[in-house]
Amino acid sequence: MNMVPKIAMIGGGSWATAIVKMLADNLAEKEIFWWMRNEAAIAHIKKFKHNPNYISAVEIKLTQENNISSDINAIINSAEFVILNVPAAFLKDTLSTITAEDLKGKKIVSAIKGIVPEDNLIIGEFLHQNYGIPYHDILVVSGPCHAEEVALEKLSYLTIACTDVEKASTFASFLNTRYIKTNVSDDIFGTEYAAVLKNIYAVASGICHGIGYGDNFQAVLISNAIREIKRFVDAVHPINRDIMESAYLGDLLVTAYSQFSRNRTFGNMIGKGYTVKSAQLEMNMIAEGYYAVKCMHIKNQAYNVDMPICKAVHSIIYENRSPHIEMKLLAEKLN
Amino acid sequence: MNMVPKIAMIGGGSWATAIVKMLADNLAEKEIFWWMRNEAAIAHIKKFKHNPNYISAVEIKLTQENNISSDINAIINSAEFVILNVPAAFLKDTLSTITAEDLKGKKIVSAIKGIVPEDNLIIGEFLHQNYGIPYHDILVVSGPCHAEEVALEKLSYLTIACTDVEKASTFASFLNTRYIKTNVSDDIFGTEYAAVLKNIYAVASGICHGIGYGDNFQAVLISNAIREIKRFVDAVHPINRDIMESAYLGDLLVTAYSQFSRNRTFGNMIGKGYTVKSAQLEMNMIAEGYYAVKCMHIKNQAYNVDMPICKAVHSIIYENRSPHIEMKLLAEKLN
Repeated sequence: MNMVPKIAMIGGGSWATAIVKMLADNLAEKEIFWWMRNEAAIAHIKKFKHNPNYISAVEIKLTQENNISSDINAIINSAEFVILNVPAAFLKDTLSTITAEDLKGKKIVSAIKGIVPEDNLIIGEFLHQNYGIPYHDILVVSGPCHAEEVALEKLSYLTIACTDVEKASTFASFLNTRYIKTNVSDDIFGTEYAAVLKNIYAVASGICHGIGYGDNFQAVLISNAIREIKRFVDAVHPINRDIMESAYLGDLLVTAYSQFSRNRTFGNMIGKGYTVKSAQLEMNMIAEGYYAVKCMHIKNQAYNVDMPICKAVHSIIYENRSPHIEMKLLAEKLN
Repeated sequence: MNMVPKIAMIGGGSWATAIVKMLADNLAEKEIFWWMRNEAAIAHIKKFKHNPNYISAVEIKLTQENNISSDINAIINSAEFVILNVPAAFLKDTLSTITAEDLKGKKIVSAIKGIVPEDNLIIGEFLHQNYGIPYHDILVVSGPCHAEEVALEKLSYLTIACTDVEKASTFASFLNTRYIKTNVSDDIFGTEYAAVLKNIYAVASGICHGIGYGDNFQAVLISNAIREIKRFVDAVHPINRDIMESAYLGDLLVTAYSQFSRNRTFGNMIGKGYTVKSAQLEMNMIAEGYYAVKCMHIKNQAYNVDMPICKAVHSIIYENRSPHIEMKLLAEKLN
């Protein structure tokens, strides 16, 4: 009874660091565990209390320095709540030493916004199918939330989704701080899909900007994008939801209107005439929307939802079609 | 039969100039008439084919130079479609010599986004009540559309609303060009109210930015704003509409995310600590949202719709409340 909750973060990037900061600033008693692959970063954090690679200005307030480690089995075994926050493309590799038995009975929280590429599954489905985790033990954390603004303690809202809303509330109570407010939802599927799809619309925004479309068109594009999200999530998981809530529309807005989004930057380069390969080389990274649009294209073959924006982005990125022509054709379908 | 349509523009600002450009670039045969108060501007346009004061790079292609005049009665008498495009606060004065008889049988198109201040009526209601114009002869033109982007011929979408959708289609056919696409709607009330309300949310966005809130909060604010618009228009005029369409959500986005919006600039100054008076003096103009929030506050006394964002802006601007405190209280109500 009255046990101190034990929470593990799996991942060492910006968003993981931001969530560790929230957990530490939150006033409820808890023990925080943190796994990351990079040994040098761990040593730096232990010594200087700052992540050397991501949102480095943030002071890391871990209670015990041994709680941070590159031994994923030890970290996961210690915790009751396990937050997954590595890129979706690396999730399988990260969990390669972890068995279903290791995760049994734990609450698994996905802070990943992406689809596991080979399996073409959102994180909740992947955990359920590959590790047998019941849906009522799977939680999803969603924005609208740039990690950089959390680092600056700018007021931000998170949505915690779980089919067991009580568990979502419990986990939300670990994150609330003077700069973080939380909503609770029962819609893990809609929340995950919306978070994946928004990256595709950020790529589309970038492409249009790169070609020379202006703010008037961007507003029409995004007003169509949220309707596209609604059509898709209503088809995949038809529950009563208000797509204008923060976790759906808000998350789309913060990404599609961000000048700093990698997805938008990637799209912008495509719109300006870079090839996909050269844009990726130039950026020295791969935008999530690049994977997402392929996965969603395949996914949607089962549902046949009308998604003209996703289709246009897919044609441009995977079928080598002209951004100018595809966006001109798309413009005829928007309203 | 087969008469050339005669269309009059009443107003000489940016948006009026942009619409005149669309009408002239549209390929359908028509005769365009243009009223503006400023005689010097008229002389300049006749001589140089450019409006000296607004989006001056645009070439004005009027077929007959006598079609532009400061004689409002002559201009209105010439036309079958009359587009009103003066600031709402000046509409009564502009129409002071015009009688109900003068407007009888004409289609009156409002391109005004505002409320007539003394009467506290949206333009459609004002025309209906004060000039006896039947609603099926009242049309509304709405964005998302910055005039500056029309000047640059950037692809933009307009919505034309009329309870008689056929009339909306006819008028839309005068505006379509290679850079303008049109939607048609039967919702003049929702379209007008959304266009008025968006200016209030742009003020709110500016206030929050001025105080120091970031993009994460802005996304939550706007996702709450569109729900606030939906609640209000559903209460005032409950028809089946999709609030995520361009004329509602798109128009909100283009305004609230614009760095150049006067409403946002005004709000930003308030957020930074200027008084309302000094912000207006500094800007040398009055943002529409300043009037709109007062009018909507009074309007909503009849409907009692939950509109916490409008309420906060009203408190700050008209009740001299602290922007910091009001926005902090508002943040508790958003989700």
